[in-house]
Amino acid sequence: MNRRKKSTDKARFAYDGLERVIHEKARLGILASLVTHPDGLAFAELKQLCSLTDGNLNRHLQVLQEAGLVEINKRSDEARPQTFCRMTSAGRRRFAEYIGVLEQVVCDAVEARDVAADASRSPRRGWSTG
Amino acid sequence: MNRRKKSTDKARFAYDGLERVIHEKARLGILASLVTHPDGLAFAELKQLCSLTDGNLNRHLQVLQEAGLVEINKRSDEARPQTFCRMTSAGRRRFAEYIGVLEQVVCDAVEARDVAADASRSPRRGWSTG
Repeated sequence: MNRRKKSTDKARFAYDGLERVIHEKARLGILASLVTHPDGLAFAELKQLCSLTDGNLNRHLQVLQEAGLVEINKRSDEARPQTFCRMTSAGRRRFAEYIGVLEQVVCDAVEARDVAADASRSPRRGWSTG
Repeated sequence: MNRRKKSTDKARFAYDGLERVIHEKARLGILASLVTHPDGLAFAELKQLCSLTDGNLNRHLQVLQEAGLVEINKRSDEARPQTFCRMTSAGRRRFAEYIGVLEQVVCDAVEARDVAADASRSPRRGWSTG
């Protein structure tokens, strides 16, 4: 990961680019699912990948559709109609911008960890505990 | 950044580790400010770094304090009393765990970008547009 140039702005940690419609935890999962499946996903697959209930997934998809980030189609070429979701090109662009800011958050945290490790002269430890 | 092993779990994009108390945009900025300033920050500095109003900063600090992530002290050694904030050790640990999951989100998005770039055989582009 590139370490981006630090902003010299006084509002260094405002992270304005963390668009709220994308940042919400469940919607972040939905968009990550869709960006990694460029041909789109059926409702049932998306529900499983994100571990959401029908109601929650429906609600968040509606928000994402209204924001122009995803498109939702009903497909009737199967035995029964299927709801199918994919990202729009605007959604792809805005998600990319969002991820750029998220990368900055991770860089900031990693830098802080490195500084702390240098200060204590202890071996570097990873962030993840999983 | 390490590319972590993908979970084989069906709920691949549930991102359970994105603890909501930390994930909220303003609180994420507050915690990033505090983790990069291990000696703590005065209320006024924190307010400026995160571009928050007094009311918003107070509200979010209260949430973070109640969750055991930050400690807030009044210092009266100055001409006038000053509110001073710093991360707790539990806060540092939980923020580290959170950042590990955030790193996974970025990895997932970067992998998707790389796959898309390979598919289109176009030059790689960065996520950030800033």
